[in-house]
Amino acid sequence: MSGLVLHGYWRSSASYRVRLALELKGIAYRQVTHDLRLGEQSAPDYLALAPHGLVPALEHDGRVLIESPAILEWIEARWPSPPLLPADPDAAAVVRAMAALVACDIHPLNNLRVLQALRDDLGAGEDQVQAWIARWIHAGFAALEALIARHGGTFAYGDSPSLADCMIVPQVYNARRFQVPLDAYPRLVACDAALCALPAAAAAHPDRQPDAQP
Amino acid sequence: MSGLVLHGYWRSSASYRVRLALELKGIAYRQVTHDLRLGEQSAPDYLALAPHGLVPALEHDGRVLIESPAILEWIEARWPSPPLLPADPDAAAVVRAMAALVACDIHPLNNLRVLQALRDDLGAGEDQVQAWIARWIHAGFAALEALIARHGGTFAYGDSPSLADCMIVPQVYNARRFQVPLDAYPRLVACDAALCALPAAAAAHPDRQPDAQP
Repeated sequence: MSGLVLHGYWRSSASYRVRLALELKGIAYRQVTHDLRLGEQSAPDYLALAPHGLVPALEHDGRVLIESPAILEWIEARWPSPPLLPADPDAAAVVRAMAALVACDIHPLNNLRVLQALRDDLGAGEDQVQAWIARWIHAGFAALEALIARHGGTFAYGDSPSLADCMIVPQVYNARRFQVPLDAYPRLVACDAALCALPAAAAAHPDRQPDAQP
Repeated sequence: MSGLVLHGYWRSSASYRVRLALELKGIAYRQVTHDLRLGEQSAPDYLALAPHGLVPALEHDGRVLIESPAILEWIEARWPSPPLLPADPDAAAVVRAMAALVACDIHPLNNLRVLQALRDDLGAGEDQVQAWIARWIHAGFAALEALIARHGGTFAYGDSPSLADCMIVPQVYNARRFQVPLDAYPRLVACDAALCALPAAAAAHPDRQPDAQP
């Protein structure tokens, strides 16, 4: 047992990214779940661990890591095998660019706190929220589809899973949840299916988590 | 001359991040500017380089890198000295977490295309846009202030500049531009001042760029 404790939430796509990386590398971890719908990520004891009040956080040896892109890089550095980043810096830059397209250009605009702010602060109706979600997913997925056409294979980059897939699969899950049509992105959909077919990735799926709701 | 060509825009904070890293490492580069207010980042010749239609992009040896977090990591891998990431993975995870707090939790919500969408798609007025900007800056800066209290020194992490500072300084520039009060973040403001006092960082400032407007 590695002693790792993952603080997360079944439907948090940032938590799902970290579960994917841990499972793909075969690293054991324990989960502590925080119900985002009840605001449990803002409880004082969680804020003492993670001052930004967001999941996931990863505890190890009395330390706490936050922010999924930083956690993924840390996992890669501590457990290099199987690699989720190519050794060549140019190739790694492509994988990290695909990952950032999700982590910086799509997901931040569509997470729970932001959608709630659209409703509460700007009075957005559900149709407007849905259009907002779809707008950023389409912009990002169109770019990812072009990058996968250049660099992809079975997976988003070449023929083995990478950190790009760990970012893409939760975002595709989100897109389906929000009923955003994916017909324009056949390569992206194929990469998602390839990763999800791996038993390790299947174990990371939201529906398989201890706090999953029917 | 390294042969590097940076595609950017003077006021793009993601471009500013890359300029800071290049200048801090003393790497020569040439700039090609794209006026975001005129939509030049969506011109076909730029989309052929960078399919996501965002700046910055960094050309080298006929290859094109996109997404500033990926570009910063690539610069660090290719020119390791002076380092902008600690060698220890635990320490690097803190630096990357601070960087991601800006790159994933603040900046994506406040960039030009998103503010325009708030106005155009949701009918937000300027007061609402201003409140939206301030909301996410305050949430992120409060968390950064707590992290700097734990890990900072002269700079955001310890006593030498890191990728965290390369992310923070452009975000502080943005906050001032949008007149968000920073009194609650004295450590963050001190780190910003420490980096900006370095001649290399000063050369990266938006006002010093070839396309700067008065």
